[in-house]
Amino acid sequence: MSLIVQKYGGTSVGNTDRIKAVAERLVAAKRAGNDVVAVVSAMGDVTDELLDLAAAVNGEPPEREMDMLLATGEQVTIALLAMAIHALGHEAISFTGPQVGIVTDAGHTKARIQEVRADCVREAIEAGRIVIVAGFQGTTPDNQITTLGRGGSDTTAVAVAAGIGADVCEIYTDVDGVYSADPRVVPSARKIAVISYEEMLELAATGARVLQLRSVEFARNHGVVIHVRSSFNDLPGTIVKEADPSMEQAMISGVTHDTTEAKITIRDVPDQPGVAAQVFSGLAEANVNVDMIVQNVSEAGATDISFTIPKEDLVRAKRAVESVVERLGARSWLVDEAVAKVSLVGAGMKTHPGIAARMFRSLAKAGVNIDMISTSSIRVSCVIAREQAELAVRALHDEFDLATDQIAAEIAPSAGGAE
Amino acid sequence: MSLIVQKYGGTSVGNTDRIKAVAERLVAAKRAGNDVVAVVSAMGDVTDELLDLAAAVNGEPPEREMDMLLATGEQVTIALLAMAIHALGHEAISFTGPQVGIVTDAGHTKARIQEVRADCVREAIEAGRIVIVAGFQGTTPDNQITTLGRGGSDTTAVAVAAGIGADVCEIYTDVDGVYSADPRVVPSARKIAVISYEEMLELAATGARVLQLRSVEFARNHGVVIHVRSSFNDLPGTIVKEADPSMEQAMISGVTHDTTEAKITIRDVPDQPGVAAQVFSGLAEANVNVDMIVQNVSEAGATDISFTIPKEDLVRAKRAVESVVERLGARSWLVDEAVAKVSLVGAGMKTHPGIAARMFRSLAKAGVNIDMISTSSIRVSCVIAREQAELAVRALHDEFDLATDQIAAEIAPSAGGAE
Repeated sequence: MSLIVQKYGGTSVGNTDRIKAVAERLVAAKRAGNDVVAVVSAMGDVTDELLDLAAAVNGEPPEREMDMLLATGEQVTIALLAMAIHALGHEAISFTGPQVGIVTDAGHTKARIQEVRADCVREAIEAGRIVIVAGFQGTTPDNQITTLGRGGSDTTAVAVAAGIGADVCEIYTDVDGVYSADPRVVPSARKIAVISYEEMLELAATGARVLQLRSVEFARNHGVVIHVRSSFNDLPGTIVKEADPSMEQAMISGVTHDTTEAKITIRDVPDQPGVAAQVFSGLAEANVNVDMIVQNVSEAGATDISFTIPKEDLVRAKRAVESVVERLGARSWLVDEAVAKVSLVGAGMKTHPGIAARMFRSLAKAGVNIDMISTSSIRVSCVIAREQAELAVRALHDEFDLATDQIAAEIAPSAGGAE
Repeated sequence: MSLIVQKYGGTSVGNTDRIKAVAERLVAAKRAGNDVVAVVSAMGDVTDELLDLAAAVNGEPPEREMDMLLATGEQVTIALLAMAIHALGHEAISFTGPQVGIVTDAGHTKARIQEVRADCVREAIEAGRIVIVAGFQGTTPDNQITTLGRGGSDTTAVAVAAGIGADVCEIYTDVDGVYSADPRVVPSARKIAVISYEEMLELAATGARVLQLRSVEFARNHGVVIHVRSSFNDLPGTIVKEADPSMEQAMISGVTHDTTEAKITIRDVPDQPGVAAQVFSGLAEANVNVDMIVQNVSEAGATDISFTIPKEDLVRAKRAVESVVERLGARSWLVDEAVAKVSLVGAGMKTHPGIAARMFRSLAKAGVNIDMISTSSIRVSCVIAREQAELAVRALHDEFDLATDQIAAEIAPSAGGAE
């Protein structure tokens, strides 16, 4: 008997039939002897419909009111799911984020969780009920409704799992796990049975869409075991947990790509102390999320600074860069939106030198030119031309033989069995 | 400068264009120097759409979860309305019922307001903002979301007006006031300029749809002046307030009809003490709202008891009556759904004897047979055959000359002017 949190995304609860199917899954887990908490997103297109309504009354709606509006999406789902469970003859109770005591900062539309009280969840579990929690939303300490931003329901699920000490947090999605590459690009991509938080963080940060970065951070910080699996079958998916000695490490876990970023280069910046600080302070003030930063070697007292940012921040970034460029007396600046970031992630890099060199050789052999490089202890990322992204991913997947199951994983098929 | 609460129903906020029109009205009232609070319902058909979703997952959804579901309707409206006001360059802030501190009992789907805290409303008004409050919803002391039942937004508006000491509570609807009869039945029906709480209560209780009964009760108990008016024009509507000597009383205010009730008759009930108590205790336990009760004179130790109930309570009522009939050994019982209640309301009845007799004569002359009669000090109601309801209403409207403006009302055209 385990205490399980199950999270279902917008596709899994996209209509009333799917909600009934989720209800059946939850009741089955409960009847199997587990205590069950579900965290759910808004139904399919509901969030987009709400965004359309907002756009019809205000082109730039205030963020506090956006949160007021969007929080209704999950509230509809939790009520319907609780009703569907009742229809199956089982007790269920739904709670909004504020009711659960998911306390966040006041960063409307992308609030960060500060605390999870969850007393009402614990009480309802003890009363034998299946508990349904609205993902994506919370409340500030002074009672304002907030949302956590896209993908926030994953974070809610992990936070609730941490708050109630769940044995596992099962994230149900429309794919059945984390793969060694995007299967639409690399048909031979392999499902990863177990992966460490560290590697999952790098995969999520570099383009793997399956898990939201912040939810993995939260899981790592609170030691929550995540099981990513499909809501359309009962196959085991991918377990994300603390690396431990018994866990055989693949040298390379996967190759990711990300085409949602743009590259900005500022040319001939004076090579003086404090210049980089000025550039990136300006961007931070404009609330632009800078990803990779590369500064080239100085030449004749001037240098180039390149960095990547999400395309959705581009308008704000351009404004910030323009004013900085003027202040610095830089020669010029340019934006390239036709770029992709391709990354190789693997804990084995720590102990296997030469991975980066082999990656660069492989890209060269495939005729892919590298624009920018950045590395961590378990990741190498290259910015390349967008039209070469898929070619690069396939070349790297082959080069490192990722289609082959490098670890004979001894994962049991049930959620708890990964321990 | 006044403190005004304005309530807009589902039709007035039926789509984003209408929401923008309401925003303009609110901003105009604010720019005219008033402090303004709006209470709004769910957009047009939203509540029905949510009911359809619920029906698709559970034929008898638990009431707590219905409240969780339905409360989202108003939350969407308040967010959009606040956004629309921002787009007009004015500060606005929206609050849900729970945020305002509209504390209710735990009677899910028809909760009753126990307390209105409204601190956040007062603070926002002092900060110069237009405040938007979700109607229809509240919270129990232990943090469960409740709804007040159909028409509950009127009650919210009056309760908020009482809570913040507003000068007037303006109820905007798709009709422009309270009429001496339903204008669809009696084209010559007259708009009533001023009416006492007492008479308005009787009108609302007997079929006038304009104001919800509980909102009038709440207004009377807290001395809130209500102004019922149209959201499509600027004409003065109907003022509802405490009767005072300066207020000329019409002998008869209006005639109403109600076809939403069914009549149940239990035949040959033993004429013993405690029998009526047994019948109506059973119905109360089944949560059936009994309206009129008539017990005929006993004959040979047995009597008939007839009563009317809302048709929506009929299933529950039949179950309760069946078990009572069996216990009492009554001969039989029957249900008549084809009935209507026609009522004459007027404070003048207190001082003009013979109104009831004149009513019965008028109905007889029109060929209308009377099934049941019940009276209060300012009302006479008759249950008749449903197909004769409109005929009866027209006969009574003529008989008492209600189309003629019996009082030369000195009401000023502005809301506050009724004082």
